[in-house]
Amino acid sequence: MQQILQQFQTTRNQSKELCKPLRTEDYAPQSTDFASPPKWHLAHTSWFFEEMILKKYSKNYQVFDDAYSFLFNSYYNSIGERIERKNRGLITRPSIETIYEYRAFVDDKMIELLKLNPSKDIEELTILGINHEQQHQELLITDLKHTFSYNPIYPKFTETNYISSKNKSKGWLEIAEGIYNIGHEGDDFCFDNELGKHRVFLEPYKISIALVTNAEFIAFINDKGYEQAKYWLDDAWHWINQNQLKSPMYWKLIDGVWHQYTLSGLQPVNPDAILTHVSYYEASAFAFWSDSRLPTEFEWEVASKQLEWGTVWEWTNSAYLPYPNFKIANGAVGEYNGKFMINLMVLRGASSATAQNHSRQTYRNFFSPNTQWQFSGIRLAK
Amino acid sequence: MQQILQQFQTTRNQSKELCKPLRTEDYAPQSTDFASPPKWHLAHTSWFFEEMILKKYSKNYQVFDDAYSFLFNSYYNSIGERIERKNRGLITRPSIETIYEYRAFVDDKMIELLKLNPSKDIEELTILGINHEQQHQELLITDLKHTFSYNPIYPKFTETNYISSKNKSKGWLEIAEGIYNIGHEGDDFCFDNELGKHRVFLEPYKISIALVTNAEFIAFINDKGYEQAKYWLDDAWHWINQNQLKSPMYWKLIDGVWHQYTLSGLQPVNPDAILTHVSYYEASAFAFWSDSRLPTEFEWEVASKQLEWGTVWEWTNSAYLPYPNFKIANGAVGEYNGKFMINLMVLRGASSATAQNHSRQTYRNFFSPNTQWQFSGIRLAK
Amino acid sequence: MQQILQQFQTTRNQSKELCKPLRTEDYAPQSTDFASPPKWHLAHTSWFFEEMILKKYSKNYQVFDDAYSFLFNSYYNSIGERIERKNRGLITRPSIETIYEYRAFVDDKMIELLKLNPSKDIEELTILGINHEQQHQELLITDLKHTFSYNPIYPKFTETNYISSKNKSKGWLEIAEGIYNIGHEGDDFCFDNELGKHRVFLEPYKISIALVTNAEFIAFINDKGYEQAKYWLDDAWHWINQNQLKSPMYWKLIDGVWHQYTLSGLQPVNPDAILTHVSYYEASAFAFWSDSRLPTEFEWEVASKQLEWGTVWEWTNSAYLPYPNFKIANGAVGEYNGKFMINLMVLRGASSATAQNHSRQTYRNFFSPNTQWQFSGIRLAK
Amino acid sequence: MQQILQQFQTTRNQSKELCKPLRTEDYAPQSTDFASPPKWHLAHTSWFFEEMILKKYSKNYQVFDDAYSFLFNSYYNSIGERIERKNRGLITRPSIETIYEYRAFVDDKMIELLKLNPSKDIEELTILGINHEQQHQELLITDLKHTFSYNPIYPKFTETNYISSKNKSKGWLEIAEGIYNIGHEGDDFCFDNELGKHRVFLEPYKISIALVTNAEFIAFINDKGYEQAKYWLDDAWHWINQNQLKSPMYWKLIDGVWHQYTLSGLQPVNPDAILTHVSYYEASAFAFWSDSRLPTEFEWEVASKQLEWGTVWEWTNSAYLPYPNFKIANGAVGEYNGKFMINLMVLRGASSATAQNHSRQTYRNFFSPNTQWQFSGIRLAK
Repeated sequence: MQQILQQFQTTRNQSKELCKPLRTEDYAPQSTDFASPPKWHLAHTSWFFEEMILKKYSKNYQVFDDAYSFLFNSYYNSIGERIERKNRGLITRPSIETIYEYRAFVDDKMIELLKLNPSKDIEELTILGINHEQQHQELLITDLKHTFSYNPIYPKFTETNYISSKNKSKGWLEIAEGIYNIGHEGDDFCFDNELGKHRVFLEPYKISIALVTNAEFIAFINDKGYEQAKYWLDDAWHWINQNQLKSPMYWKLIDGVWHQYTLSGLQPVNPDAILTHVSYYEASAFAFWSDSRLPTEFEWEVASKQLEWGTVWEWTNSAYLPYPNFKIANGAVGEYNGKFMINLMVLRGASSATAQNHSRQTYRNFFSPNTQWQFSGIRLAK
Repeated sequence: MQQILQQFQTTRNQSKELCKPLRTEDYAPQSTDFASPPKWHLAHTSWFFEEMILKKYSKNYQVFDDAYSFLFNSYYNSIGERIERKNRGLITRPSIETIYEYRAFVDDKMIELLKLNPSKDIEELTILGINHEQQHQELLITDLKHTFSYNPIYPKFTETNYISSKNKSKGWLEIAEGIYNIGHEGDDFCFDNELGKHRVFLEPYKISIALVTNAEFIAFINDKGYEQAKYWLDDAWHWINQNQLKSPMYWKLIDGVWHQYTLSGLQPVNPDAILTHVSYYEASAFAFWSDSRLPTEFEWEVASKQLEWGTVWEWTNSAYLPYPNFKIANGAVGEYNGKFMINLMVLRGASSATAQNHSRQTYRNFFSPNTQWQFSGIRLAK
Repeated sequence: MQQILQQFQTTRNQSKELCKPLRTEDYAPQSTDFASPPKWHLAHTSWFFEEMILKKYSKNYQVFDDAYSFLFNSYYNSIGERIERKNRGLITRPSIETIYEYRAFVDDKMIELLKLNPSKDIEELTILGINHEQQHQELLITDLKHTFSYNPIYPKFTETNYISSKNKSKGWLEIAEGIYNIGHEGDDFCFDNELGKHRVFLEPYKISIALVTNAEFIAFINDKGYEQAKYWLDDAWHWINQNQLKSPMYWKLIDGVWHQYTLSGLQPVNPDAILTHVSYYEASAFAFWSDSRLPTEFEWEVASKQLEWGTVWEWTNSAYLPYPNFKIANGAVGEYNGKFMINLMVLRGASSATAQNHSRQTYRNFFSPNTQWQFSGIRLAK
Repeated sequence: MQQILQQFQTTRNQSKELCKPLRTEDYAPQSTDFASPPKWHLAHTSWFFEEMILKKYSKNYQVFDDAYSFLFNSYYNSIGERIERKNRGLITRPSIETIYEYRAFVDDKMIELLKLNPSKDIEELTILGINHEQQHQELLITDLKHTFSYNPIYPKFTETNYISSKNKSKGWLEIAEGIYNIGHEGDDFCFDNELGKHRVFLEPYKISIALVTNAEFIAFINDKGYEQAKYWLDDAWHWINQNQLKSPMYWKLIDGVWHQYTLSGLQPVNPDAILTHVSYYEASAFAFWSDSRLPTEFEWEVASKQLEWGTVWEWTNSAYLPYPNFKIANGAVGEYNGKFMINLMVLRGASSATAQNHSRQTYRNFFSPNTQWQFSGIRLAK
């Protein structure tokens, strides 16, 4: 129990630490429907503890503000109405000072509750809330980068640019055919979508030890990769043409040299560094051009013990679908994962923006195949 | 060879037979981007033989009309430009008479070629062309139904209404866990997406012997199935709300009785008949409401020998993705299937509108999860 | 009365004559929301007589078909529901043969009624119906051209290409300041929007005797007219950029020579001929580039007696707004003109596609400023 | 000259005064394409002085920041690229502190320049800049209200709610027919669109002494005004149905009582107060329902000396078009008004949010007919 309390405090502090370089204005805007303002992330993660735990388990709990249930609900239909997702940037009040007061209030009440020898339910929900907040810490970084990228003066957020370093080794790892166990086991925390531990038969395959580098992707660009339909899925071909895409997100060609916007400002692309900010569509086209393919999430999971990973999320060739015997939990918690199981592709691993202790081999991340704003890269298979 | 020639002639005649009840005006219009006019189907299937076979293998072949390569290309980027998909209904000329002349011309040239002891390549491409035309025969029916449905006088096309009859038996079929073979084997024709015969491990499962009936789906509607978010995938919930959907496609509630538009005109919904014209979204919601799930395509394929199927396409819980070792063929033929492997769900079986001899247990049909205009229904699993 | 009967018969025959070169398929399609299929024009003009006259004034009148009231209503809210405007091309049945039977039926009943010494009301409504049909004759031509233009084989409809000949004279006509009468007077037919004869004070002005030619407009194009924001209204600049417009509608640059699609097929642009198929946006930009302006509709009307006009509709710098004392009539007829008086610009004159005897100096035509598919051109003023 | 200097300082201070109740977060967001964040208004009005005056006339002027020319340009094509209008809310940096420094910097330089016995050009441009800033003061208020209205906690900005008080008198003012002078005369400042003083002939008319009240508009609502097509222009009818409008902007029916969001928070609608936040479409429908019409801008101007006005902008039945002899000025200043002269309707008068000394009888305000977010109301004519 002591451990959960400590994790709770650590995680809550990390969110605040992360926001230290922000100026007040930076907390407010929303650049696109799928991203959220820093202020919203800070409030929503607190709302999660209030809504899922304090309201139910804390005796005589008085909410900090009645309006917050509405203002900071993300997508839980069972909890009631909410402001439209695209309007999160318009909620200028409460101010960020008040949001920090809200966080402190929720922290106090949670700590009080956790010190009272809490039930298994409270423990489990608290661990879920911690993991939820860790997910939002990563989104806070990627969303902020997206917003800042619209600013032609290329704001610098931190010294850390979150751009990955080089591969340590390369070559192909060969895995034999066989029945393998997939899914989470043990008592550690995992999300419901990792459960349903089950067996999968894999044909023999090879998987790359190194991730695709910027230099390799520039070779694809230079070989007119973005201009030839034959490399692209049909949807992908429409997507790059409609959006006139010619490179990964945040890349700009300046006097013949590829640059990229990073959270440390605009910088030249390092050819040896690991590629990031590509969509599944681009990953798939690159794989086709390379005469390779992307691994399935099962191939990835089986091979992962022998691989280095954790610098970029890795697109797999698996659609985000339920494991056998997957069950959606009752109530609001049940909306966490299951209802998104359509039209999304699975990413495995973790990225340079993922919170510490928030990655494992069975973790299933999932995004639409046109997603670029995450730190997402490519590992090939054959 | 004699057999291929005969199949060719039979299939070509079937397309004409199918169109007999059409009046000239019916050949022209296009009701939506994803459907095509009858005239276009008749021309495009002939274009396929001309473009893929006659131009390459028929000595001194002179095309029927230079413009047709452009006019009747569907989506083959490697063959060149084409008119925008949504504008197929605007090509009033050539007239339908000319299209029938075009068909006769292509038939003559093909028959001539097939009689000359053709190469393996020609044989294989001819069989592909026959199967391609059979696919378009089914689309011709479903597209026509879509167009006619906009007409408030409910046109009658044929006596056949393509609405399925009753289940012959019911109950749950139980399948034991194990490694199963998946994919096509043998020398018969199959599409490239069925190849890559491979092994899949299945956990034990049950699959329904009967398909879902109209009465069962009406119970879902009456239980406010379309009004409760908890049954629906998130995308699905937005989709039904945005389009204000309350029932399967073509259904209308008239004085408290459900009716449906059929190709024989407007008719009351028969409660005992097998449900059709539902999307994957609706299939998934219904399954959730029934405390069941949809089978994967692998579960379906393994069980299929012991099931009755063929009246409606059956939505599976599998995304349309490549089998292990799937390879995209070189050239235009390579565009047949592979480039659509994203954001679509697999349907298995066949429907009442599927051409005869055009179904098999390994057949993978695939559509977007919001597709309703096909004759598509639901089989549950557990 | 005899005269009205004769006009009725002449006009009804003209519609049929106009359609003689059509093949059955040509009657069906609709290329855009603002255009309609020939079949619809033929039916709707008959519907007008049935709905506005026969149903009210013909004793024991039995409608030809109950569904037509719904199928062929254009936009009259007071008459009830109608199919969505954009779906007119999907109504394949009734067939064109049936529509011609419908026309003959309405003709018989109208002739019968007109022979019975009809009331003033019937006379007036019949004259309105005749003028209404004449308007649709012109639309039938322009809509057909629009549909045919999507066909890459450039169908030929008639020998007549409707492209205007040369100006007969040129120079500037000077008009003195003064109070002028505007609006229709006399007992002849006019639309309600021409009424409210009233006085307008005009400052002195000059108006061009000649209309702008293709050569003059090509000079504008060659002077990078479409590429410089300074010539364009703000809305216009967005419009040409969003639609990537570089020329009048139907123009194509082939090997450095401007060609245009006409109803006689693709033809080189004749530099000396009068320019047509430009929008108000283009007219306004051209005027600005020419250091001139467009005349107001009042300036045009006052000068018109001394001008040659009738080959192209002429954009004026007047918005389509009610004249003083304009009154909207009661009932369905009241929806004819008044409810469109917003966001449209007035065109004066007539075009090569306007029905004979269907033009006068007070006629107010009106379209959205981005309209190109009418035969519309430019006359300058200063 | 002393006077201009003083006006300059007064106006610049007013902008700051206006923003005093804002918290830092309030400066940032943009709720819609047509509104801008307070920070942007403050910066853009300074940019105007820098770009139009200081860069050209101030010796050795060094811009405050190179990026601002790009960041704070509104729509001047001749000055170069700018960020997309809809992304103004994403420019979190420079911070609001820096923008206030920028304002102070521009103020110092302008004051310095104005003290140096400036040329006529500088004087005129300074007066234009002052008037420009006054326009943005009004927009700052209306834009802020729009943003705040999305917040379900109904933020309170000031004690002033900008909602208009009652009419002081009523009845119909009758104006005789005749030739009247229209447009600005004298040496006072006016915008270019008011110039071209000219004569207009007016038929005799009556104009209402009182503006339409909330009670009168509620009578229209209660008479099913929003539900009957016959009162509405065709575009208007589509607009209210597409947007499901049932009342003026910011109105909400709570337990049968109409409330409205104001800058002092949510308040009951006062029946006797003057109606505001209606579009031209609603004004036109209300006039039709009242058996009246809206005055033209000429009728308004002629009558205005005998009317009380200035609490709401008054929709007129005149489209925003150039006066005779209107000339667009050379260079960037020429983009101020002329290029918007299409698809907009003229409003006359001024509103409770209009800056002091920023209204006159010849002032032509102009907005799209669906505009509601301005303080706009209705005066009837006959």
